[in-house]
Amino acid sequence: MISIVLLGAGNVATHLFKVFQNSDKISVTQWYNRHINKISSYQNEVQITDSLSELKAADLYIIAVSDDAISTISEALPFQDRFVVHTSGTASLYELDSKHRRGVFYPLQSFSKDSEMDFTKVPLCLEALLKDDFKTLKGLAKAIGCKAYKVSTEQRRYLHVAAVFANNFTNQMYRISHEICEANQIEFDVLKPLILETAKKIQNLSPYRAQTGPAVRGDKTTVTKHLKLIQNPQQKAIYQLLTDSITETHGRKKL
Amino acid sequence: MISIVLLGAGNVATHLFKVFQNSDKISVTQWYNRHINKISSYQNEVQITDSLSELKAADLYIIAVSDDAISTISEALPFQDRFVVHTSGTASLYELDSKHRRGVFYPLQSFSKDSEMDFTKVPLCLEALLKDDFKTLKGLAKAIGCKAYKVSTEQRRYLHVAAVFANNFTNQMYRISHEICEANQIEFDVLKPLILETAKKIQNLSPYRAQTGPAVRGDKTTVTKHLKLIQNPQQKAIYQLLTDSITETHGRKKL
Repeated sequence: MISIVLLGAGNVATHLFKVFQNSDKISVTQWYNRHINKISSYQNEVQITDSLSELKAADLYIIAVSDDAISTISEALPFQDRFVVHTSGTASLYELDSKHRRGVFYPLQSFSKDSEMDFTKVPLCLEALLKDDFKTLKGLAKAIGCKAYKVSTEQRRYLHVAAVFANNFTNQMYRISHEICEANQIEFDVLKPLILETAKKIQNLSPYRAQTGPAVRGDKTTVTKHLKLIQNPQQKAIYQLLTDSITETHGRKKL
Repeated sequence: MISIVLLGAGNVATHLFKVFQNSDKISVTQWYNRHINKISSYQNEVQITDSLSELKAADLYIIAVSDDAISTISEALPFQDRFVVHTSGTASLYELDSKHRRGVFYPLQSFSKDSEMDFTKVPLCLEALLKDDFKTLKGLAKAIGCKAYKVSTEQRRYLHVAAVFANNFTNQMYRISHEICEANQIEFDVLKPLILETAKKIQNLSPYRAQTGPAVRGDKTTVTKHLKLIQNPQQKAIYQLLTDSITETHGRKKL
């Protein structure tokens, strides 16, 4: 049994609380938040507190607060030599106060408060300074059915950049498609199955091998036609730059 | 019952043949291909031919060949005033010879020959010069359980541009993520659930509302950090341009 004290009341903390409660290998000893009203609806399920001085002993303290509050709250914890982790994708492990045994427990997924989340599909990026603490994190990941990856603070930085491409920039591609559809009275719904298929395809195939379309074919005629059709200068610049990126990736000459 | 003659033996033709065979409202009268050996394995299921002069009467002739062969084969058809469509996303309806009643039957999805395809999830973009012919296409779409959209030749051109963004450019975002992971010894698998979630999210939410991340938050600190981390000049240029695109979309000032 792994005992946990949870700190924070945002999306990640709330999702974690729910998934921890569903595991018989985890017991949430206490849930802390600065403003107790944000977690008071859970008071029948777990002991809640808004006072750091009342925190109980536990195997693991999970700080799931905004990045800029991590260092303050970890300093304010009235104990030392206990295992304390944060859940941030961008904050360094070293933002945790050095009086603790430190680690990171970063679930890589985009969380929204409303939607139910199948936590078993969320990859956990784990880091710990001590071997035994890393084992605790791996045990925790297993207890909630998640895949665990060992990711250092340095790697986590790059992972966040990679996630900006895979998530935010991908979503902006959808947005531009949406704009082009709207400007031409085409229902964006027409593209939704293609968008889903594109994401599904790379679950089992590398993005390199999954690539299709005019750029990878070296189809200059189509690229030229498309650049003529696009009126918006920024969309045109994106079309050109990403076409160049694809031809370069696939060792073709510039179109 | 809709009777169909299918022309061509590529991925689209093969997928169409299979889905037509599964419907009791459709009968494939004949399957033509220039090289008969490519369809000879289907000779017990359908009458096959490599001779245009032997083509039989049917409600609909579907030309599923490469774009540059559409006009040649439609001219070579030894009849007139019959309903003839092509399946291309880019070719104009007017590439079909004017002796025919013309139309387009364009399934918008990325087809690969091996993988099984759930055709009910493929949107069909339909166009026809005559109202009754359009009804035939809509009936055909219904018979195979597909959603049908009325899309003109002009709209289809823009739809293809939109699909390049939603499919090829999106896939290149995955590729760049993959490169960043590889360069930093991170398993790309960590990002796969996020990629799938990003595509699923916009099935019910507009890409505008679905956007998250440093650019839409106006988080200059993170953007600056990321630009410092990225060494590859082309990746850096893409990061900058797409960040600009997101801030512009969301009415924020340039980061």
